[in-house]
Amino acid sequence: MNTKKPVKNPKIAVIAGDGIGKEVMPEGVRALQVANQKFNIGMQFDHFDFASCDYYLEHGKMMPDDWFETLMQYDAIFFGAVGMPNILPDHVSLWGSLIQFRRSFDQYVNLRPVRLLPGVPCPLANRKPGDIDFFVVRENTEGEYSSVGGKMFPDTDREFVVQESVFTRHGVDRILKYAYELAQSRPKKHLTSATKSNGIAITMPYWDERVEAMSKQFSEVRTDKYHIDILTAQFVMNPDRFDVVVASNLFGDILSDLGPACTGTIAVAPSGSINPEGKFPSLFEPVHGSAPDIFGKMIANPIGQIWSGSMMLDHLGYPEAGLAIFNAIEKVLVAGGAPLTPDLGGTGKTDDLGKAIAAAI
Amino acid sequence: MNTKKPVKNPKIAVIAGDGIGKEVMPEGVRALQVANQKFNIGMQFDHFDFASCDYYLEHGKMMPDDWFETLMQYDAIFFGAVGMPNILPDHVSLWGSLIQFRRSFDQYVNLRPVRLLPGVPCPLANRKPGDIDFFVVRENTEGEYSSVGGKMFPDTDREFVVQESVFTRHGVDRILKYAYELAQSRPKKHLTSATKSNGIAITMPYWDERVEAMSKQFSEVRTDKYHIDILTAQFVMNPDRFDVVVASNLFGDILSDLGPACTGTIAVAPSGSINPEGKFPSLFEPVHGSAPDIFGKMIANPIGQIWSGSMMLDHLGYPEAGLAIFNAIEKVLVAGGAPLTPDLGGTGKTDDLGKAIAAAI
Ligand SMILES: CC(C)[C@H](C(=O)O)[C@@H](O)C(=O)O
Ligand SMILES: CC(C)[C@H](C(=O)O)[C@@H](O)C(=O)O
Repeated sequence: MNTKKPVKNPKIAVIAGDGIGKEVMPEGVRALQVANQKFNIGMQFDHFDFASCDYYLEHGKMMPDDWFETLMQYDAIFFGAVGMPNILPDHVSLWGSLIQFRRSFDQYVNLRPVRLLPGVPCPLANRKPGDIDFFVVRENTEGEYSSVGGKMFPDTDREFVVQESVFTRHGVDRILKYAYELAQSRPKKHLTSATKSNGIAITMPYWDERVEAMSKQFSEVRTDKYHIDILTAQFVMNPDRFDVVVASNLFGDILSDLGPACTGTIAVAPSGSINPEGKFPSLFEPVHGSAPDIFGKMIANPIGQIWSGSMMLDHLGYPEAGLAIFNAIEKVLVAGGAPLTPDLGGTGKTDDLGKAIAAAI
Repeated sequence: MNTKKPVKNPKIAVIAGDGIGKEVMPEGVRALQVANQKFNIGMQFDHFDFASCDYYLEHGKMMPDDWFETLMQYDAIFFGAVGMPNILPDHVSLWGSLIQFRRSFDQYVNLRPVRLLPGVPCPLANRKPGDIDFFVVRENTEGEYSSVGGKMFPDTDREFVVQESVFTRHGVDRILKYAYELAQSRPKKHLTSATKSNGIAITMPYWDERVEAMSKQFSEVRTDKYHIDILTAQFVMNPDRFDVVVASNLFGDILSDLGPACTGTIAVAPSGSINPEGKFPSLFEPVHGSAPDIFGKMIANPIGQIWSGSMMLDHLGYPEAGLAIFNAIEKVLVAGGAPLTPDLGGTGKTDDLGKAIAAAI
């Protein structure tokens, strides 16, 4: 879908973050460095320690004051994971880093491929690689993730909290346009809109209205819509029905964890938080989080991180290099055996799998 | 879980509603009538045509002005389905009927069993009856389903809509208490709270706070929490992990479609919208909707409706009668063959399956 000219000598800001982010990031960088050489890309990497709970413990904040200017000098951000709920509440660590990036860098597209890969055990009966292959296109800056609201009558029986969902025409139309363009570029040309206009009866009918309006500009694309409740059911029952699924911030968040779960494991799922106009750096990160429960054992699956690197190369204008990394992932999965991490049935450590993939590029 | 005295000669308001609601309702009533006789319950049924799109077409509104007084004379409402989006937008038909009932009759608990039944083909690999058996307890009156909000700058580029989510201590605490009591009454004594406090950073941290406070009063119950995104993934990957799942209005809506999908089909799933204090009538209905796409063919599966009747008997204080209906459903599913509707692999019509179940009670 990327038709941009390649970015020359792209500068990459590498932020490993917390937990298994620190374990999978070296494998992501390893694969990128192989592709860098092989395809003569001239990518440069700088590593940063902020946007992590360790940084917070030392500095009392998630990021330095000049984080915005610093990161603006990069063509993309390669991100691991953030959050250590036993150290800092998630809403503090996340809103102080990842969600800041999405807003400040206007990364309004969150793009998440959902694909059943060979060699990954699938929790659904009778599904094989190729059967599941779609994208979730998630609005990434507004909607249900708002910062407007608060508490009244604290510590009394009358206590309540409110939070405003905000859907702007600007925000809704641009994500729909992106999703329609993506659908148009794919063979099936099929777009599914996630709604809940029967229950969330103010914002969601508006979403439907904008989908209806946008669909008129893409007459080749077949549009349908499902309420989010039955849509999650359809992901399990008929995942082969989908091509491009467009959703609000919250619904997209849900669907892009559920989709990968239906393909076996969220550990392999990548994502891009993209500013399509390229005015700001885009960010690429695995869908899994920092996974404090398995951190320290070096058993984390690095494929989500490595595949995110492949998406980043695509975004930067190097689709062949991106594809080379993706093909290497598939090759190693098909070969199977020892290098695979325990979640894939192997006995490999994080770096065993990372090295096997790097060697296959 | 019901320890109430039986309601004497319960009066039931029957509302078939729209679409397949009209096809499955006679089967629900058929089963109830058999149980009525067999267990000498003395139940009486009155049928109403309002809360349907047909009624709307004739009267320009979903319900007569005195619907509240009328239905207050009943001990429970036995409901089919409502909504015909080609006739009337869902948010008009639903907010004019079902969601009205939930609010006006303070049916603050939406109780939805998720159980893998014998003979129902399961989309998950390697799961058998007994492996999946839990309850979704959904808050049913507030949260994300609010009527506060609106549009500004209509028909301009600055257009936006907002909608307020509202979580009150009153509303949150009572649903948590119900869920904890249910968990306490079950062998596993395990409660899972659905949250999204890392992203929905105003209302959801409040939800977590109230769970934390309530958990202190139920020291025997093991509590854990998942963010809604990964929770949907867990429903697919580890559905055997759950016992009682408590969730806000929207999250509960999603989980109670996804759960039944993981057990094979939402067509069999029942639900109760319950006012536990019995000050108002509670409502029992299948989870599936009016399904306009299959309406008219008499192929709709009546089990969701019949099982809802079983839940209603339980609620009215006749647990043996409720169990008899549930056992009859299982028996007919195990026997398999012709009477099953097409979605279950049979060739039966809606009433064939209904009659088979009635005969097995
Ligand atoms: C029809 C719709 C408004 C309703 C809801 O969202 O509550 C339905 O999905 C349900 O679960 O009962
Ligand atoms: C960590 C959390 C705030 C984040 C989100 O909800 O957006 C994550 O789940 C994701 O999907 O990137």
